[in-house]
Amino acid sequence: MKNRQVWLRSRPNGIPQAADFDLREVELPTLADGEFLVRHAYLSADPAMRGWIADKSTYWPRIEVGDTMRAFAAGEVVESRNPVYAVGDKVMGIFGWQDYAAVRQSQVMRKVQEADLPLSLSLGILGLNGLTAYFGLLDVCRPRPGETVAVSTAAGGVGSAVGQIAKIKGCRTIGFAGGRDKVRQCVEDFGYDHAIDYKATKDVDEALAERCPEGIDAFFDNTSGAIHDAVLRRINLGARIAICGTASYASWDPWNEGPRPERHLLVKRAIMQGFLTTDFAARYEEGVAALAGWIRDGRLRYREDVLEGIEAAPASIAMLYAGENRGKLIIRL
Amino acid sequence: MKNRQVWLRSRPNGIPQAADFDLREVELPTLADGEFLVRHAYLSADPAMRGWIADKSTYWPRIEVGDTMRAFAAGEVVESRNPVYAVGDKVMGIFGWQDYAAVRQSQVMRKVQEADLPLSLSLGILGLNGLTAYFGLLDVCRPRPGETVAVSTAAGGVGSAVGQIAKIKGCRTIGFAGGRDKVRQCVEDFGYDHAIDYKATKDVDEALAERCPEGIDAFFDNTSGAIHDAVLRRINLGARIAICGTASYASWDPWNEGPRPERHLLVKRAIMQGFLTTDFAARYEEGVAALAGWIRDGRLRYREDVLEGIEAAPASIAMLYAGENRGKLIIRL
Repeated sequence: MKNRQVWLRSRPNGIPQAADFDLREVELPTLADGEFLVRHAYLSADPAMRGWIADKSTYWPRIEVGDTMRAFAAGEVVESRNPVYAVGDKVMGIFGWQDYAAVRQSQVMRKVQEADLPLSLSLGILGLNGLTAYFGLLDVCRPRPGETVAVSTAAGGVGSAVGQIAKIKGCRTIGFAGGRDKVRQCVEDFGYDHAIDYKATKDVDEALAERCPEGIDAFFDNTSGAIHDAVLRRINLGARIAICGTASYASWDPWNEGPRPERHLLVKRAIMQGFLTTDFAARYEEGVAALAGWIRDGRLRYREDVLEGIEAAPASIAMLYAGENRGKLIIRL
Repeated sequence: MKNRQVWLRSRPNGIPQAADFDLREVELPTLADGEFLVRHAYLSADPAMRGWIADKSTYWPRIEVGDTMRAFAAGEVVESRNPVYAVGDKVMGIFGWQDYAAVRQSQVMRKVQEADLPLSLSLGILGLNGLTAYFGLLDVCRPRPGETVAVSTAAGGVGSAVGQIAKIKGCRTIGFAGGRDKVRQCVEDFGYDHAIDYKATKDVDEALAERCPEGIDAFFDNTSGAIHDAVLRRINLGARIAICGTASYASWDPWNEGPRPERHLLVKRAIMQGFLTTDFAARYEEGVAALAGWIRDGRLRYREDVLEGIEAAPASIAMLYAGENRGKLIIRL
């Protein structure tokens, strides 16, 4: 049996394109003690993968040319030399863009227990996206009922969950998204009170002031840049700003410049905090239990964009940055 | 009896100068019910007063041309129509640059109870400066023993207290100050492990890396600007940055630009938080008790620069921004 892998052929300057990757076929790995073999059902494409490839400004070791692309994947254990993982177990973790992976405990994000829900959800709403929304909103933004929560990339895999959880917690929500379809999706599918099409809106400050005369109490930011600055200008006393991503910039080398936040954070006694979902690893099961409960209740909706076949993986990161997807982008094997 | 007042004659564009103020003599006020008359012994000059006069970017109503200058002052109650304040009580609060003030409860910061310590301390180390250091360091920076704490304007009224409290709490400390005298004062008087003369140091990044190879865990920032940026580049995972002031900029209108912190806060999972000491008003007595205890033990040193007479007040704000003072600047009446 062969294993197909998507590997990094050249280091991109900016957003990784399909041509930066190639496909190879290798022998199935032999398991070392403690390892188990996972047959992948789904591979993930995430905005963070750009940073994993970049030279700098990231939080994991960079991927070298020749390496199989690091990626989240979900699948079933088909062989095991680890007593904790039995054949038939469903697992999700950082297993790479490939058909099969020989996996060690340290690569596993979680064993998937929600047999009544699709396994693909473990890469999105019940995986990093949902958990990022859950902990970033509840632990970093700490919204109180009646407050106004702003969300950038509001229709995306993380943002759409943030907006819906904020509504579940009794907040008003305003989302930023690019394009009429996404804006409509924000309001109709994800229950945002307001959505601003940042691509079509000439004066975002004015649009924000009209829709949120009461100001912004919490901001879940996936973009940095112009949306970040506009929301910052509208924050209330004691606002909490969670920095989850910086998608509006293709590169952070050299550091991007912009309005300094210090004076405004001081005057507003506001908090700006960066966080990684992995900092909350000890509480993943709490998060998944809550998210799965809201999904079963019909209170938390999600959308998946499914690409077919591993051949679709190389182009998927560029699709994310082009804003072509409307939900969590996954590749079905 | 007459009351002399320093009033705002013209709104400065930038740092208030002596010529922006004038002195006038008025009748002593008649007390309304609930008011009491305070004869001032000391007036305060604080960096924040620039912001109180500026058009924008501040947290209190601006001072209008013709108004008596808003200022902290300390003195003794000499007449009272308020049952809580008796003749002979010592009080400190926002009473203005004048000889006497007819005061209401809302203007009082605290009744001064430390009869064994000089009343002037209530404007500095036992007043806003000490309390700003105490709450900003302990509640916002939250240093743990063994961590490294960086402080800007390290020899100033607030900074010198921050550095000493951090040492009391078992931290390593590094201070930034301008000029050889202040740097020597940091190390000799205030116990900093390291001090960097930011005016004489060509490469602040290099100096910081040499002195703090272990990185910075907490940063108490009074300046914004170049020092802020250099420290930010050296922070460790989970760092806490308290924004207390932005003294390196004479104006924030329009907003100053600089390196965007979002990506770095994300990668470092760091917190940047603005705070005002007045947010901790309910805990002032806790803070003063701790500070007074350290002063009596000889573990907390302070320095006062005393100007003589109310005529010295108009020039005092510009002195602060010129860095001419070496401790808490007060005016003795």
